[in-house]
Amino acid sequence: MCERNINNKTFTLKEICQYLELDCDNDAEIQGINTLHDANENEISFLENPKYEKFLKNTKAKAVLIRKEDADKLPEGVIPLITDEPYLKLAILTKLFVKDPWEDGGYQIAFSAKVHPSVQIGKGARIGKNSVIMPGCVIGPDVEIGDNCVIYPNVTVYRDTQIGNNVKIHAGSVIGSDGFGYAHTKDGRHIKIYHLGFVEIEDDVEIGANTTIDRGVFGKTVIKKGTIIDNLVQIAHNCEVGEGSILVSQVGLAGSTKLGHHVVMGGQSATAGHLEVAPMTTIAARGGVSKSIKKPGVYSGFPLMPHKQWLKLQGLLNRLLKKS
Amino acid sequence: MCERNINNKTFTLKEICQYLELDCDNDAEIQGINTLHDANENEISFLENPKYEKFLKNTKAKAVLIRKEDADKLPEGVIPLITDEPYLKLAILTKLFVKDPWEDGGYQIAFSAKVHPSVQIGKGARIGKNSVIMPGCVIGPDVEIGDNCVIYPNVTVYRDTQIGNNVKIHAGSVIGSDGFGYAHTKDGRHIKIYHLGFVEIEDDVEIGANTTIDRGVFGKTVIKKGTIIDNLVQIAHNCEVGEGSILVSQVGLAGSTKLGHHVVMGGQSATAGHLEVAPMTTIAARGGVSKSIKKPGVYSGFPLMPHKQWLKLQGLLNRLLKKS
Amino acid sequence: MCERNINNKTFTLKEICQYLELDCDNDAEIQGINTLHDANENEISFLENPKYEKFLKNTKAKAVLIRKEDADKLPEGVIPLITDEPYLKLAILTKLFVKDPWEDGGYQIAFSAKVHPSVQIGKGARIGKNSVIMPGCVIGPDVEIGDNCVIYPNVTVYRDTQIGNNVKIHAGSVIGSDGFGYAHTKDGRHIKIYHLGFVEIEDDVEIGANTTIDRGVFGKTVIKKGTIIDNLVQIAHNCEVGEGSILVSQVGLAGSTKLGHHVVMGGQSATAGHLEVAPMTTIAARGGVSKSIKKPGVYSGFPLMPHKQWLKLQGLLNRLLKKS
Repeated sequence: MCERNINNKTFTLKEICQYLELDCDNDAEIQGINTLHDANENEISFLENPKYEKFLKNTKAKAVLIRKEDADKLPEGVIPLITDEPYLKLAILTKLFVKDPWEDGGYQIAFSAKVHPSVQIGKGARIGKNSVIMPGCVIGPDVEIGDNCVIYPNVTVYRDTQIGNNVKIHAGSVIGSDGFGYAHTKDGRHIKIYHLGFVEIEDDVEIGANTTIDRGVFGKTVIKKGTIIDNLVQIAHNCEVGEGSILVSQVGLAGSTKLGHHVVMGGQSATAGHLEVAPMTTIAARGGVSKSIKKPGVYSGFPLMPHKQWLKLQGLLNRLLKKS
Repeated sequence: MCERNINNKTFTLKEICQYLELDCDNDAEIQGINTLHDANENEISFLENPKYEKFLKNTKAKAVLIRKEDADKLPEGVIPLITDEPYLKLAILTKLFVKDPWEDGGYQIAFSAKVHPSVQIGKGARIGKNSVIMPGCVIGPDVEIGDNCVIYPNVTVYRDTQIGNNVKIHAGSVIGSDGFGYAHTKDGRHIKIYHLGFVEIEDDVEIGANTTIDRGVFGKTVIKKGTIIDNLVQIAHNCEVGEGSILVSQVGLAGSTKLGHHVVMGGQSATAGHLEVAPMTTIAARGGVSKSIKKPGVYSGFPLMPHKQWLKLQGLLNRLLKKS
Repeated sequence: MCERNINNKTFTLKEICQYLELDCDNDAEIQGINTLHDANENEISFLENPKYEKFLKNTKAKAVLIRKEDADKLPEGVIPLITDEPYLKLAILTKLFVKDPWEDGGYQIAFSAKVHPSVQIGKGARIGKNSVIMPGCVIGPDVEIGDNCVIYPNVTVYRDTQIGNNVKIHAGSVIGSDGFGYAHTKDGRHIKIYHLGFVEIEDDVEIGANTTIDRGVFGKTVIKKGTIIDNLVQIAHNCEVGEGSILVSQVGLAGSTKLGHHVVMGGQSATAGHLEVAPMTTIAARGGVSKSIKKPGVYSGFPLMPHKQWLKLQGLLNRLLKKS
């Protein structure tokens, strides 16, 4: 899924288990955390929600945080890390792997780029040819910005963000902030899941002012080529916005939702999390998407329905009101 | 209500009345403005809305801006400041007490804190141990930030804000801006009420990107311990968000609303002002709260109703639509 | 419509046609682009949408991008620039006329103004008497800020913005960003329309935190005298907000909509584009305006209706639900 390994911290399983107060005495090196589906043999994973049990049998993870009763479903060779609260342990573990949000140090700016002297740039960042970075921007460590980009004033780009060519980001927008993910203790405390992933903005994307795009928890949040995003839009962690899509002002996408190519979302419309919206779909202004959309078309309302049906509903309500 | 006296300007009643073009010749020292309920003997208060008349008889205010016909309801010893437009006079008066939003001068940073050199810090601010303040942040005068906090880039913290320990605030958020409060003249002009209060963020709170939290008009806006707030959320003046609450992206709380502990508000949900929401209540995404909620539960829709009822309503509409 | 010519780039028609790969060999000097209705004799215009055909006969434009079949409707002396895709050519042309978003150089600050040393100011900007510009602000080239203004931290004001006297803008707001306007190619690419207009904020306006106001595409976006705007509000390109209006938090106005004087828009309410809302109209919280409002009153709901009717509708639904 995600070609780029941005986490270069490494711990042994033994160290991890000490940190989590779990039992395990194995010297395998672990380089990160990932889902059962996406983990590789140097990563640790977890199972809490039975919905993801189906991914157990093919997981390539080195070790899995798992309840005792599920442990025998693991493939041979995958190490079970037994715990009553796998998701909570996962949240605690993310803190071990997270990198400093800011590091000063050397960075690279193309000779033809114009970076205002007031811009702050983190260690290892790279800025491409002819790109313009305007006053007050903060470009985090290891961020890559391609050629011919324009970053307007006071934009914040968190560490590890990948930005392609010909990208424009308007003032005040925030790219790569932590997603809104927490595990919850039995006594009602919220344990932060540090977001170890990143944001990727492909070529030819334009992003409006004061918009926020959160980084992936593991893996990435992706805005695909040629998509245009208006002001004050919220895009949560691990979303994927398809090529050439249009998100109008004040739209909100909840976590892990995938929009196909050329999806249009009208002003103040929104989606729930973990959904898929078919390519070429249009959601009218204020539409609220709470289930995946398989058939392209124009949809309205909340709950969402085909736009024609929504018009009929409004007509019906109008008639009922006149009769009453 | 509010232990901290952040306004250190003092005027005599006589000076105040000259400023307001009112009649009064008393040398009592006045240190601030407050509601009838919360005012102390060094403060001035006001009565315009009959709803608050009940607080007259126990008010400890030194003087009260009040209509002539209400003046005899004041307790003995409280000085009436007679005017036809108490609220308008109040608004005008707030300007007298407001402090400069920015003052340069000395401040304190714990030795172990990491404050980026580009950060601007106002006079009298204090930053605690191990706290990290990232590039581009502006920390106003007399702000207090506790230990182990992380303030991401380009955050603005207005003067007098109090931030506890282990607080995280993501990029671009604004804490302590003036609330949206105005008196209105008969000819339709809006007279600004300068907000003399502050914001208090308790321990273990995390606030997302580009979120806004307004300061109290008098007293404070409070985000209690362990609450988590997503991106692009609006919290108006004098709100109180209870412990361990969860506010998802694009939520809006209008002024003086109090959420109990562990309230959950889904994405784009909102409340009107001056309401109370019972502890452990969940408002589904897009829910609009226009009355206080006394009974915990899951609520949806606008107008708001129990979630089960909302589901029934959608089923009913669906059936009507099919029949039509 | 717009007294101020902020675009000082000049091209000959011949140069423009070479750039657009169109046929034309005329040395007339062109100073800008505008609508058919507003263009002057030094400007170029366009016709794509038949809705605007009525403006053809009185246009003063020097030349018009137009389809072959419409060209004979042009008044005598107006030069047709024949193309199958007038709007797409227009979009491409805007890039030729756009000025650099940032230029360093000399600027003027009144002796009595207080501009924090961390503020970045572009070439040709002017800041009036007693105005205060707080840390982290970025004031673009040729911006004019009047007297007695307060610009809170980390505000971005794009180039050419005009701000009157006694204006307050709270932290993180963005004034003058490009509007969300694109032409679309047949293969689904979005071609940016560079916004050549500006924003005008009249006297006595207050704007909340993290609000966004886009510049006009041609001409201007205007916030009229004495209007107050809350946090996280979106105002799109070419809107006009009438005198003394009130826009509560999270309101969204789509492009080219005009609000009359003293319009009140409740929290999270919104309008579609190209509408007019009558003076003294109130839109309740969450109201969605999709048609022009000619008669002042209080309106609610989406679709919008008179507030009393909306209350009846809710009563009706409630009764239906009880019966079912």
